[in-house]
Amino acid sequence: MEFVENAVGRLIPKEIDGRELIPFQGAFADPIAKMGRRKYAPPIPKSHPEWLTGESKLCKNLEDAIKRAGLRSGMTISFHHHLRNGDYVVNMVLEACDRLGIRDLTLAPTALFPIHAPVIDYIKKGVVRNIQGSMNGPVGEFVSYGGLPTTAILRTHGGRVRAIEDGDLHIDVAFIAAPCADDYGNANGVYGPSACGPLAYSYADAMYADKVVVITDNLVDYPCLPISIPSTHVDYVVVVDRIGDPEGIVSGTLRITRSPTRLYIAELAAKFIRESPYYRDGFSFQTGAGGISLAVTKFLGEYMEQDGIKAGFINGGITKFSVELFKKGLVRKLFDGQVFDPVAIQSFRDDLWHQETPMTMYANIHSKGCLVNRQDVGFLGATEVDLDFNVNVNTHSDGLLLHGIGGHTDVAAGAKLAMIVVPSYRKRIPVIRKRVTTVTTPGETIDVVVTERGIAINPRRKDLIEHFRNSKLPIRDITEIYKEVMDICGGEPAPPKTTDRIIALIEYRDGTVIDVVYQVQR
Amino acid sequence: MEFVENAVGRLIPKEIDGRELIPFQGAFADPIAKMGRRKYAPPIPKSHPEWLTGESKLCKNLEDAIKRAGLRSGMTISFHHHLRNGDYVVNMVLEACDRLGIRDLTLAPTALFPIHAPVIDYIKKGVVRNIQGSMNGPVGEFVSYGGLPTTAILRTHGGRVRAIEDGDLHIDVAFIAAPCADDYGNANGVYGPSACGPLAYSYADAMYADKVVVITDNLVDYPCLPISIPSTHVDYVVVVDRIGDPEGIVSGTLRITRSPTRLYIAELAAKFIRESPYYRDGFSFQTGAGGISLAVTKFLGEYMEQDGIKAGFINGGITKFSVELFKKGLVRKLFDGQVFDPVAIQSFRDDLWHQETPMTMYANIHSKGCLVNRQDVGFLGATEVDLDFNVNVNTHSDGLLLHGIGGHTDVAAGAKLAMIVVPSYRKRIPVIRKRVTTVTTPGETIDVVVTERGIAINPRRKDLIEHFRNSKLPIRDITEIYKEVMDICGGEPAPPKTTDRIIALIEYRDGTVIDVVYQVQR
Repeated sequence: MEFVENAVGRLIPKEIDGRELIPFQGAFADPIAKMGRRKYAPPIPKSHPEWLTGESKLCKNLEDAIKRAGLRSGMTISFHHHLRNGDYVVNMVLEACDRLGIRDLTLAPTALFPIHAPVIDYIKKGVVRNIQGSMNGPVGEFVSYGGLPTTAILRTHGGRVRAIEDGDLHIDVAFIAAPCADDYGNANGVYGPSACGPLAYSYADAMYADKVVVITDNLVDYPCLPISIPSTHVDYVVVVDRIGDPEGIVSGTLRITRSPTRLYIAELAAKFIRESPYYRDGFSFQTGAGGISLAVTKFLGEYMEQDGIKAGFINGGITKFSVELFKKGLVRKLFDGQVFDPVAIQSFRDDLWHQETPMTMYANIHSKGCLVNRQDVGFLGATEVDLDFNVNVNTHSDGLLLHGIGGHTDVAAGAKLAMIVVPSYRKRIPVIRKRVTTVTTPGETIDVVVTERGIAINPRRKDLIEHFRNSKLPIRDITEIYKEVMDICGGEPAPPKTTDRIIALIEYRDGTVIDVVYQVQR
Repeated sequence: MEFVENAVGRLIPKEIDGRELIPFQGAFADPIAKMGRRKYAPPIPKSHPEWLTGESKLCKNLEDAIKRAGLRSGMTISFHHHLRNGDYVVNMVLEACDRLGIRDLTLAPTALFPIHAPVIDYIKKGVVRNIQGSMNGPVGEFVSYGGLPTTAILRTHGGRVRAIEDGDLHIDVAFIAAPCADDYGNANGVYGPSACGPLAYSYADAMYADKVVVITDNLVDYPCLPISIPSTHVDYVVVVDRIGDPEGIVSGTLRITRSPTRLYIAELAAKFIRESPYYRDGFSFQTGAGGISLAVTKFLGEYMEQDGIKAGFINGGITKFSVELFKKGLVRKLFDGQVFDPVAIQSFRDDLWHQETPMTMYANIHSKGCLVNRQDVGFLGATEVDLDFNVNVNTHSDGLLLHGIGGHTDVAAGAKLAMIVVPSYRKRIPVIRKRVTTVTTPGETIDVVVTERGIAINPRRKDLIEHFRNSKLPIRDITEIYKEVMDICGGEPAPPKTTDRIIALIEYRDGTVIDVVYQVQR
């Protein structure tokens, strides 16, 4: 295998699984855009009689839909993860494929969760041969130990939609779990027992897949409104008993962190934002559903109320905490790729200025300008951060691939102030490290790292360092924080024990490869 | 020139202006879908610094935008007609192109109106060389007399979006008049002095044009919500004083016809619908803004109220008359491609179940199922109808091309009950004729013609004839009505005096040519 060193110093093979790789060349180099390529052109659909006469697209059952969609061994199928750890649909489709004797599928979900552990069996049986998508938990671990016969590809939210639109990820059949749908295929996620909010992750799949199957447990009269997925792009509709488990879909118990350390980190982050040049009327920020992120949102909201500052928009994952700021008038508009709780679903459904953001709108670098590019502040997590400010969100220090990327890299590249808010170590394992195990997000796109030991500004951001020169906040050099962490943790952890087989590629949002993940030895 | 007879008996040249033509082969033959072609693939945009850093896309002025968009002689530019006879943008862009010395443009508007009469001068000057789009009024007349150096192409709403998506109509630069927009290009039509409602006609232009310029007279803070045109597909934004004249954009004075004859026709139509098998809870219909159409809507609403029948949806053009039914709960949902009055704009802006319908959703035969296909009833106008039920909406009996197609052909093909509601003659010129001057919509897709002399059911609809066998409505043979009309009008009008030059093609919604229009002699 021939390797090339990329712009963050990682060795990238020239080719893998017969696919030529482009090494990462810098956060904004975007080499594919310079090639003069065109977007993927889906086939002009052949008019089915049921489309022309407006008849129902209902199939008898899932197997019927799979057959009618022409799904065969070796093809690529896709899914969204709006149902998160409550999703029944991925397993259900793989079970049906298995029964039909379909093998060697490429699975292209936006993300897999612990509930998708059965995927492991379908890999072992040969039903699944490749995965292109995020793997949270058991499937990631299985792949880490070499369980997948091919190399997985992990992409950011923006990178996945780019790959679909650019034709790098061709989807033969998209399966779209729909909490609400009509018999012609119009679908949304806001009504029904499996309500999840937007269906934003699937929009590109619907636009670009050769065949699209909507799977619902809540068939409503035509026309199903609002329309997140339009019937114009749906081939078949299947009704099943349940598409998911509400307990796993939404969280009734999203909680702000109670850890004093993490609350302190959140407070520091909020204070830093408040003192930053971006904190002004009309500013914008991105939140998530993690405990620290929720706390930053809360603190920031309190400051905004005190200071009479109103945000232009929040770019979600939206939670009840964001909705609260919106309802109070502290935030004018909400952009929403996914929601996490019932309050947010209700607001998404009813509030005109709570807007669904398909992934191209959210973060596609090959669009003419997406939402993250307009964002002032983003606060993000990490498993590791290094002295070059590179961030790892995929693997742990033991090398296990346990997390997806989400919009991390996209937001970091887009937001004017991209902050990592993390404890400096976890359970005596350092988070601040000399070199991250895996580079998910390049350091050049990270502006600030906020830990309980202080705030490190990226030396590239001379303007920010100057701005905070007289701040009373604990601004520190990242190497100082690093040294303290090393003292506490007793030095760097042992490097992961790996073989020389690459089990996954970490694709940057522009389609280049920023890092590779090696198989971990048991 | 070599000709082929198409499925409605019209002679179609094999080729014109170097373009090979496919003759119409029947309403649902759809030969292009059978060719295994792919949709048009727009270029992957090259990342501009201002897109990546979220900076403004504002241009100094229109000329600056035209230059930056790389518009050159011989290219194709497109426009929407949501501003109707109040639109300033088409003329404004052509004026700027003229100043910049750009020539030989193909103009691809959704429709031109009398306000666009200056286009005639730009044709004479050589700025415009071809028109692909509807021409209402003076430009159509000018083209009829041979004023355009090339052959114009008229398409239906669904046919135009098909042509764009299929790559038959390639747009180099789309100019989108936006009553409300932000500096990143998100745009809608619901706020501001030039508010017009949806921007549905332009959505495909934004998706498929190489370059997209948003022109607004109402720049608002980012993010502009709702988003009809997303910033992800917009290259440049231009602010001008006024994009249109509100007087011409919306009508404050939409009136139900007061003519007793036309009221009688409307009443007959409404009664026919009421007695038809389609009149049941959840049924759907399409309305327009013409005087008879408004009257049918009103009568139908009264019947629905009396009968306790609720419609599932109205497929618009939406007017205050439709909104009234919606607000009363007589219609559950409104689909909206364009609106005609301020009441409808307000409802479109504020009501969650008043849904914008981009043209693919409305009527694209090369989608996997569009709205018109689900429609029960459509009532439509005509300049002429013939004994084969073929309908002309483009030309008059003198051969002059004075009207566009709109969604006529699409609705006729889609609706289960496609009704023409027309007086049998106008000013002693017969509307019911032996052969229409121009076939816009094929007779096989027209089910019923309602005139003041009675209701003619298409003999192809044996089921409907049977259903109405014992009706007290004046169901008559179309030939009987025709004979009466001939008596009144003193026979068929003289055929138009034309040359042998074809000045326009009438394209069917599937991309085949259903008729041609010849140059009229002065």
